[in-house]
Amino acid sequence: MTTGKHRVVIIGGGFGGLAAALALKGADAEITIVDRRNHHLFQPLLYQVATAALATSEIAWPIRTILRDRREVRTVLGTVIGIDTGERLVRIEDGTALPYDSLILATGARHAYFGHDEWEANAPGLKTLEDATTIRRQLLEAFEAAERETDPQARAALLTFVVIGGGPTGVEMAGAISELARASLRDEFRTIDPREARVYLIEGLDRVLLAFEKDLSAYAEKALIDLGVIVELGRNVTQVDAEGVTYGDRRLAAKTVIWAAGVQASPAAKWLGAEADKAGRIRVEPDLTVPGHPEIFAVGDTATITMPDGKPVPGIANAAKQAGEHAARIIRARVMGDTAPKPFAYKHRGSLATIGKRAAVIDFGWIKLKGWIAWWVWGLAHIYFLIDAKNRFSVALSWLWIYLTGRRSARLITQGPAEKTAPLKEVTKTEG
Amino acid sequence: MTTGKHRVVIIGGGFGGLAAALALKGADAEITIVDRRNHHLFQPLLYQVATAALATSEIAWPIRTILRDRREVRTVLGTVIGIDTGERLVRIEDGTALPYDSLILATGARHAYFGHDEWEANAPGLKTLEDATTIRRQLLEAFEAAERETDPQARAALLTFVVIGGGPTGVEMAGAISELARASLRDEFRTIDPREARVYLIEGLDRVLLAFEKDLSAYAEKALIDLGVIVELGRNVTQVDAEGVTYGDRRLAAKTVIWAAGVQASPAAKWLGAEADKAGRIRVEPDLTVPGHPEIFAVGDTATITMPDGKPVPGIANAAKQAGEHAARIIRARVMGDTAPKPFAYKHRGSLATIGKRAAVIDFGWIKLKGWIAWWVWGLAHIYFLIDAKNRFSVALSWLWIYLTGRRSARLITQGPAEKTAPLKEVTKTEG
Repeated sequence: MTTGKHRVVIIGGGFGGLAAALALKGADAEITIVDRRNHHLFQPLLYQVATAALATSEIAWPIRTILRDRREVRTVLGTVIGIDTGERLVRIEDGTALPYDSLILATGARHAYFGHDEWEANAPGLKTLEDATTIRRQLLEAFEAAERETDPQARAALLTFVVIGGGPTGVEMAGAISELARASLRDEFRTIDPREARVYLIEGLDRVLLAFEKDLSAYAEKALIDLGVIVELGRNVTQVDAEGVTYGDRRLAAKTVIWAAGVQASPAAKWLGAEADKAGRIRVEPDLTVPGHPEIFAVGDTATITMPDGKPVPGIANAAKQAGEHAARIIRARVMGDTAPKPFAYKHRGSLATIGKRAAVIDFGWIKLKGWIAWWVWGLAHIYFLIDAKNRFSVALSWLWIYLTGRRSARLITQGPAEKTAPLKEVTKTEG
Repeated sequence: MTTGKHRVVIIGGGFGGLAAALALKGADAEITIVDRRNHHLFQPLLYQVATAALATSEIAWPIRTILRDRREVRTVLGTVIGIDTGERLVRIEDGTALPYDSLILATGARHAYFGHDEWEANAPGLKTLEDATTIRRQLLEAFEAAERETDPQARAALLTFVVIGGGPTGVEMAGAISELARASLRDEFRTIDPREARVYLIEGLDRVLLAFEKDLSAYAEKALIDLGVIVELGRNVTQVDAEGVTYGDRRLAAKTVIWAAGVQASPAAKWLGAEADKAGRIRVEPDLTVPGHPEIFAVGDTATITMPDGKPVPGIANAAKQAGEHAARIIRARVMGDTAPKPFAYKHRGSLATIGKRAAVIDFGWIKLKGWIAWWVWGLAHIYFLIDAKNRFSVALSWLWIYLTGRRSARLITQGPAEKTAPLKEVTKTEG
């Protein structure tokens, strides 16, 4: 296996890791990319899987397919359990180890509950395809249970949906749930009217979409209210349980709660014993290397780094991509013998968030957009960033269908407790 | 809730139950359709989900969406646990009960292991979307594990795939797995060559596709062999375990085994205490009613009925549809006061099976087709039978993509043991 070439190991096939692998094209190196999932996930559209608009396979691609033409890249499906920085080995759960000369940590993040891990059982977050199909199941089952429920109070709790966190994911989820209830499910129930559903968006700060300027935040809030979402600002959630949510001085009976309020980096900092911020992100050097380890880079949600203006580089897809490409550039230069320091200069290309199927807000810096024109720019940009032509057609078709008919084509309740694949159970004969 | 109208309860939203609900349009009746899943599933294409060609949502539709314009139809998501024939009540797991004047049992079947239920753990069958994504995961994980495996024997067992049962599902699965290995996965692995995969189709009888005439069976066998499938006829499987399969006097080391050899009806016969055949299907009267219960019909895989020529009505989608429509016709007549006996006359419209993406066999009775022209007829027929325009476009796009590029767009490993959504586990720091 050793050809004497420089060995690069990339942990994680998300935006950062994949960008690094792609940017290393032509470098005189042997590259291994390892991920515990077989697919790269287009996370910005994950909320659309959770709200039944898109199929799982429309926003995910096998990592090895993306890299099939790169003969020098090896893709490994495996769970990393630790790093031996002395021996320069990445340890995999199955007992194997991957040797490296350069290592890129692009391990991403999961949702975090700020010390309230017990909330997770009742307020799932949205990071993986499984998270999305779980939330989809819970949303759809709530309407089904409400249709069967005869007690008005219990029914109201089933038809109350709470999204915690007013960032892009929370705003997009709340808008999509409201549209699901008001448009997609209309006329399909006989006991309930799905339009009775109440969708709450709870945010501790005084406005939604903090990353945007105030007028765009205000527009987004208004667009949410127009969609029927109840926006609750300036009150922190203090309790989440099976019956509902407490925030500020208010208690809300709600059977479906979705967490979009915070993330926690993967345990990469722990693997290295590196200094991390509160969210577990490694405090990296200006060139994205881990302090004391010039051969190890951390990118995307695995790292925290401050821009010259004092703001942190945001935890968004494009920032992860740029960081991955930067790490690849440094490694490529080093292989060529160039070890000059190269600090990472993040260039913010823009912020986008969509609210339902007719409104969005966009801040490209040089131009700000809102309303339906922003929605079209948002839609075209997202189709453009999908990996292959098939999925571009497929997502465009799904969106066109929703736009024209209001119907969502992935309204499946799958893999739930009620969906076991076990053999049919024995039942009692109750003949009269 | 009681309007004095005739109350029809339909258990099952598959081909038979859905056809009954649709055929009851305009009848002066209150209809309830109950299913433990929220979706109608187009089972003839389920093997394409299992082999990563189609997304789950491309072949499934919410039952209540299909029936949204039928205000007199109520859709209930619930698991039936029994029937009280004296009180005429269908009992649901959640404690509620649905009263009926006429009842249609369209509860379908699951795979059966002929007294060897212990085989199921190592040889999953294919009846639900979850079955399909489970098999998809196992197929794709086998190639991933083989890529990591260093022992040649263990690797060979990982690259050996066995399909048990030479009916349409078995033939279609075996062909699709072989194409997956030979075309879709080509060039994506660095240690293994997926074309080394061996796909076995084992059938106890002396030919595949028993429902077809001998020359079409022979053609299908040849088409399978051309695709690289090893067809083993005339030998029964006597053992299935975690390490492989024993059939005839042969032992085969194989890590992936798929069961396509037999079905067992749902427990509807037990609910009623009705006489059933070996596969659990109720022996119905010529008009599809359950003996002693003229108000209860059994259709599709829930019932067994012999045609005038002595052959049983086959367990295929079209037969279930015709039976559902027949039951609806009788109920409609009864509501109008017409109780004259109406025996079910099954009309066989044809048998179709496809082998890979370039061959199929079709027997319409008046014409027999094989080869690529049969494949096109098969493809167009299946697109035609999908429920809505969106899915027709979507499936056509997925097939076109595979046809042109060989790539399968739903190659996702999801919801497996390695895919838990649990928070990140604590890991040991192994710094050198």
